[in-house]
Amino acid sequence: MNNLETQSLRLKDGELFIIDQTLLPHEQRWIDVTQPMDMNEAIKSLRVRGAPLIGVAASLCLGLYANQCKSEDDFRQKALMLREARPTAVNLMSNIDSILALKFNPEDIRRKANEIYTADVSLCEAIAHHGASLINNGDQLLTHCNTGGLATAGVGTAFGIILKAHQQNKSIHVYVDETRPLLQGGRLTAWEMNRNEIPHTLICDNMAGHLMSIGKIDKVIVGADRIALNGDFANKVGTYSLAVLCNYHKVPFYVAAPKTTLDRSCLSGESIPIEERRAEEVRGFQKLQWSPKESQVYNPAFDVTPAELVSAWIFEDKVHHQPRSF
Amino acid sequence: MNNLETQSLRLKDGELFIIDQTLLPHEQRWIDVTQPMDMNEAIKSLRVRGAPLIGVAASLCLGLYANQCKSEDDFRQKALMLREARPTAVNLMSNIDSILALKFNPEDIRRKANEIYTADVSLCEAIAHHGASLINNGDQLLTHCNTGGLATAGVGTAFGIILKAHQQNKSIHVYVDETRPLLQGGRLTAWEMNRNEIPHTLICDNMAGHLMSIGKIDKVIVGADRIALNGDFANKVGTYSLAVLCNYHKVPFYVAAPKTTLDRSCLSGESIPIEERRAEEVRGFQKLQWSPKESQVYNPAFDVTPAELVSAWIFEDKVHHQPRSF
Repeated sequence: MNNLETQSLRLKDGELFIIDQTLLPHEQRWIDVTQPMDMNEAIKSLRVRGAPLIGVAASLCLGLYANQCKSEDDFRQKALMLREARPTAVNLMSNIDSILALKFNPEDIRRKANEIYTADVSLCEAIAHHGASLINNGDQLLTHCNTGGLATAGVGTAFGIILKAHQQNKSIHVYVDETRPLLQGGRLTAWEMNRNEIPHTLICDNMAGHLMSIGKIDKVIVGADRIALNGDFANKVGTYSLAVLCNYHKVPFYVAAPKTTLDRSCLSGESIPIEERRAEEVRGFQKLQWSPKESQVYNPAFDVTPAELVSAWIFEDKVHHQPRSF
Repeated sequence: MNNLETQSLRLKDGELFIIDQTLLPHEQRWIDVTQPMDMNEAIKSLRVRGAPLIGVAASLCLGLYANQCKSEDDFRQKALMLREARPTAVNLMSNIDSILALKFNPEDIRRKANEIYTADVSLCEAIAHHGASLINNGDQLLTHCNTGGLATAGVGTAFGIILKAHQQNKSIHVYVDETRPLLQGGRLTAWEMNRNEIPHTLICDNMAGHLMSIGKIDKVIVGADRIALNGDFANKVGTYSLAVLCNYHKVPFYVAAPKTTLDRSCLSGESIPIEERRAEEVRGFQKLQWSPKESQVYNPAFDVTPAELVSAWIFEDKVHHQPRSF
């Protein structure tokens, strides 16, 4: 497999590294995830995150492991372990399924992993191209969670669109939701906005409605972890509230994702499983725990937004406006 | 002035103390705020907070200071300083105005301060009584920010209602919004829920919409920092988003406050000033700063909810349903 380097992945001389996203923005530490057990831990602990990136990273890991595994059984077992590492992201499952569908052959598996990587890069580029056509000069945008080069192998989904509009010299301003509890907006998106010199303002999640009420938001763009056949989609918790707020304020609400995010076995949002995570994530942030341990916590990582609240789905083929046609 | 003790205030032998709310729930430290300069710092830094409590605490402080001040001019200057300590809370201003309206006489000022304190206690009790009549056995409630014995001198406003319903042996469950950026829900309301053994679940602010979408919220009850004559009101940022979410999901949305919160000089929400606070509050929590310093921040402490999104206003006299009559 060729060496490669993105904002969040490095493959060099048969070793795979990811930037540890739990330490950003203050520390940029690369960790070795060549072994499937290490990749599994990195996915579960969100050192590597973002539905497209998880799928690419796990595939590259298996591409290397195909040459090192003890047996085909061992390989399949590790592949299935990675497939289960996060229950909501569909790219991970579909990417690994496409690897497992091959007759076991290290060379073919490496080639497939590489294809998955290059496909993600070009999908992001195509999504950015289509999505940027929706952004006008002077637009004030709002985005949630992180959907850039830390969430994909390419320029990102929602973030890629914003970056493309900025590179097209459109004057835009982006409000960045901090995205509790894990603060992917406040830590990661804000970091990527600065790296790309995109004018932006950080807010807490509960300020978005107020901003809409005073006319400060022209469009909201988010990514997706899984899209059902009817257009409902799961994304980072808080996305659904934004969609309802957009509906009330008549602000267009766009979702951007590669078509691999579309789960045709999933007829509607009701059948998308919602991952629940640890109470400590809500009671504080990392080692700082500000809430009483005695308090029970509900911590869904995602929520489901129904298709009727979506203005358009931005895929790599085109922008699908309502009524949807995919 | 008599000695007195509440969950958040202690007046003993001519000295006034408040519990430092920035240190809760982990540390219960009482600090001396007998001097107006110390009270001013405590209000600005949110060691003492909650619109009714700020008004009571500042009044008690002035009640003591009336005996120690160098002159009437000095007293008036300190009173005006406290009056400006937070721009959105109207109780603070009206309480201090009622003290300044007196002919300067330490005994009268002490008596007035004591009246302000005892009035708040009985107002809270009356609000709790009226509000609890709206709560049914089995209700799942949601509240935002902190409105209990840490926000008032009595049992609280929204929290007092919840506590009263619980004491009436109604089986209720309360979802507690953490309330970024200062986490009054996650730190203070969760602490008060535990002290009173009220069944509750802590969530991040961005999870409320998801909970409503899956039918987990029957009613939302919040407090208010200022209510305009037309029923619009200002409260902790995030309140407005909850009101819009309630509207979409047809969940009753109640606001509870003493009538002193009603600002008859304020015709609508548009004329309520919104305090903006420091960027560091959004970039992190206290000393832990997780967002890049380079990112600009918007940090309004409050937002305004229009009257048409309110199902009822719960005052000490009665529950005012729509169409409102006050």
